[in-house]
Amino acid sequence: MSKEIGTREADFSKWYNDLVVKADLAEHSAVKGCMVIKPYGYAIWEKMQQALDKMFKDTGHVNAYFPLFIPKSFFSKEANHVEGFAKECAVVTHYRLKNSENGIVVDPDAKLEEELIVRPTSETIIWNTYRGWIQSYRDLPLLINQWANVVRWEMRTRLFLRTTEFLWQEGHTAHATAEEAIAETKQMLDVYAEFVENWMAVPVVKGVKTPNERFAGALDTYCIEAMLQDGKALQAGTSHFLGQNFAKAFDVKFSNKEGKLDHVWATSWGVSTRLMGALVMSHSDDKGLVLPPKLAPFQVVIVPIYKGDEGLKMINDTVAPIKKALEAKGISVKYDNRDTQRPGWKFAEYELKGVPVRIAIGERDLQNGTIEVARRDLLSKEILPIAGIENKIEALLNEIQENLFKAALKRREESTQQVDTLEQFKQALEKGGFVSAHWDGTPETEQKIKEETKATIRCIPLNNKKENGKCIFTGKPSEQRVLFAIAY
Amino acid sequence: MSKEIGTREADFSKWYNDLVVKADLAEHSAVKGCMVIKPYGYAIWEKMQQALDKMFKDTGHVNAYFPLFIPKSFFSKEANHVEGFAKECAVVTHYRLKNSENGIVVDPDAKLEEELIVRPTSETIIWNTYRGWIQSYRDLPLLINQWANVVRWEMRTRLFLRTTEFLWQEGHTAHATAEEAIAETKQMLDVYAEFVENWMAVPVVKGVKTPNERFAGALDTYCIEAMLQDGKALQAGTSHFLGQNFAKAFDVKFSNKEGKLDHVWATSWGVSTRLMGALVMSHSDDKGLVLPPKLAPFQVVIVPIYKGDEGLKMINDTVAPIKKALEAKGISVKYDNRDTQRPGWKFAEYELKGVPVRIAIGERDLQNGTIEVARRDLLSKEILPIAGIENKIEALLNEIQENLFKAALKRREESTQQVDTLEQFKQALEKGGFVSAHWDGTPETEQKIKEETKATIRCIPLNNKKENGKCIFTGKPSEQRVLFAIAY
Repeated sequence: MSKEIGTREADFSKWYNDLVVKADLAEHSAVKGCMVIKPYGYAIWEKMQQALDKMFKDTGHVNAYFPLFIPKSFFSKEANHVEGFAKECAVVTHYRLKNSENGIVVDPDAKLEEELIVRPTSETIIWNTYRGWIQSYRDLPLLINQWANVVRWEMRTRLFLRTTEFLWQEGHTAHATAEEAIAETKQMLDVYAEFVENWMAVPVVKGVKTPNERFAGALDTYCIEAMLQDGKALQAGTSHFLGQNFAKAFDVKFSNKEGKLDHVWATSWGVSTRLMGALVMSHSDDKGLVLPPKLAPFQVVIVPIYKGDEGLKMINDTVAPIKKALEAKGISVKYDNRDTQRPGWKFAEYELKGVPVRIAIGERDLQNGTIEVARRDLLSKEILPIAGIENKIEALLNEIQENLFKAALKRREESTQQVDTLEQFKQALEKGGFVSAHWDGTPETEQKIKEETKATIRCIPLNNKKENGKCIFTGKPSEQRVLFAIAY
Repeated sequence: MSKEIGTREADFSKWYNDLVVKADLAEHSAVKGCMVIKPYGYAIWEKMQQALDKMFKDTGHVNAYFPLFIPKSFFSKEANHVEGFAKECAVVTHYRLKNSENGIVVDPDAKLEEELIVRPTSETIIWNTYRGWIQSYRDLPLLINQWANVVRWEMRTRLFLRTTEFLWQEGHTAHATAEEAIAETKQMLDVYAEFVENWMAVPVVKGVKTPNERFAGALDTYCIEAMLQDGKALQAGTSHFLGQNFAKAFDVKFSNKEGKLDHVWATSWGVSTRLMGALVMSHSDDKGLVLPPKLAPFQVVIVPIYKGDEGLKMINDTVAPIKKALEAKGISVKYDNRDTQRPGWKFAEYELKGVPVRIAIGERDLQNGTIEVARRDLLSKEILPIAGIENKIEALLNEIQENLFKAALKRREESTQQVDTLEQFKQALEKGGFVSAHWDGTPETEQKIKEETKATIRCIPLNNKKENGKCIFTGKPSEQRVLFAIAY
């Protein structure tokens, strides 16, 4: 298989799909809309999971596991929720196969009395469980997270960004007051923003969704929005204040310190393998992936350039202590001295895979006590002395991590446009990026703008500046700008 | 809710169910046969996962993720496999709900062309994928593991031991030769045995299954078998040599070094949340859980015994450096100084939860520079000086880990019986434990023994001693004893 990928300029969408498959991140499976996450892609996801899991635990959360299946009747209990998810539910109706003249068929005698939905999200099954766990204010807050697979039947799919099955975490918390629940909602939004910016090196705008874009069943949906290289926005994570909706639907009450019964206040929040798509689309280039060092399965690759067994042996001896010194600093290193591939092939391979730093070492280097160090983000190289190289590489990895964030932030800022008329608005969308504009605050206008331009309101940024203006669509008065974009 | 659990003597099964629920490990969900794994139980499972995952990676495996759904036609491709799993498959037939006069119903217009099976195990979808990944001997071995949920429709369920949905890992490897695949199968059996013995402190017998008990589609199934306190056996893990069955069913070929095409050789191996049941049934007592220190969510709990705020403050000041010194040694500690519960309540609670070591510290202890240290496994206590306590506790945790294993091993050895007649065999089963007996080697006899006594052949132990004898059932000649038991 050719390792060639297209260019972003020629066809961003094709470039992305080629890259995801050829860099061994994921591929389409035989099951429509479902992907296979390949080992290299899964290794990145594991690093994301570890970092997030630690952040969740550091903020007092614990993990648990709830059933994959949700009885259909549970779904109907929260009206907005079922409305939002009914159209994309995978439904289990039978529990047995049997042999027949036509081969293996579903056994019609093994029909379920009540159909089961494969969870698209777990609010309903979890709140039905919480009813048994919460009696008193002493049981609150309940701060639980789940790592799981979920299924939302999608007609048009794209690796990582939109798949029928995906992996995610979903936090579900219960609180004694609305204030506490709102504070939790915002805290988890901050956790997500910190992770996406500091680990993924992707800058995000924190904001709140308009009612049109809220999670089905939420009173408020907070979000982080990223801007990708093609000028499209991506919702990277959401944190919902659910009010007492699910507590009322599932009759979850607690007695407060005064012994009075009240419904519990809820939040839920999640990020998914979608983040993998954001990562790829933020930093990668026409040569392949560019990974931030904090999430790279290995941060440094060492490639020997040699002739004959004797040459290789000498290089092996030089590389061993370098590798050891790097690993002692917690840096992950791969030494690729396979003789089945040539150095040029390896260089291209590790560029495609986005390894942050490549070290090449040849026989002449041995004489000079030097090595060649190449950084993936800038595709630049320099010759450095071997002595003390571990400190140089450590600093370089930090520099790459920071540089990726800065470059992405600069790109986002340059592509964020402020406009005051519908004409300007359309031109700005043409160019791509976030478009900051006045809107009259009604769902109807939001819907009409979407129909005419495909742009949606990504969010009302938190701590948004108040500013009197006129809606770009209706000319009605507006008191703040909101962020529009074409989104994935 | 009462924290009382029954006794093992009175009703082992009730004791187990009570304990699992009341110690906050798991509970039944609203979905028949599916459980909720509660935070305390999930914390133990996470520790198991971490230890196993490291062992898999240390033996060269990487993680990946394959789809939850398997097209029905894939199932039919390996005849024994579909035969083995057809009766317990959850089947997805529709992909949408809709509103109707009768409320939310499954939309009959959204029927799938081909039904999807919720994976009961992933050989078929994985081998269908491997066809695209393997062309040459250079692509082998392929050493992949998956952490996932699976569904097998069970009519009679029991928390952890047999549930419709469970969590597990499944390794799926591909090799160039039968010898390599068999070596892998045995290596992973050893990994499992090492984990179950050294982490869970549960001794196991390593063996091979008879054809009757083989995994559907395997040429050989290796297993580890544990003996629980009630005299029943539990299959704790299996490792399968699959031959070329799945490679042939899914047409997975590779060209060897000579350029000749051949089908690939396969293994698969798995352990599941079933291990949680083995853990509970091996060590726990009538007061509650007993956890091996290596898997306890926290290894030490410290309970202050005080009067008034001033007394608590003095104890807090003394506990802080003790906690710090223990944590510096990598020991996990919980200091429970809540004022909402009395010390006696806390003692009972942490006994129920199986915390390996409990430290109690009162005001008199402050004067003497001592603390009371209680170990959960023996329910014994001693007064120890605070100075250097972290070294004592570290040694004590190791001792508890070892003692649990030794006690379980002693119990197993005492309950393993060797018999030579059917009469003795039945008496031995009555007492419980492993029964070592001669068998004529035929599936028919094995089946008849099962029908008459409910006992199954748990395994033919590896490196079994050859010994001429007569089958206890047919009197026909036999060349080795095998291990029978009543099993979960």
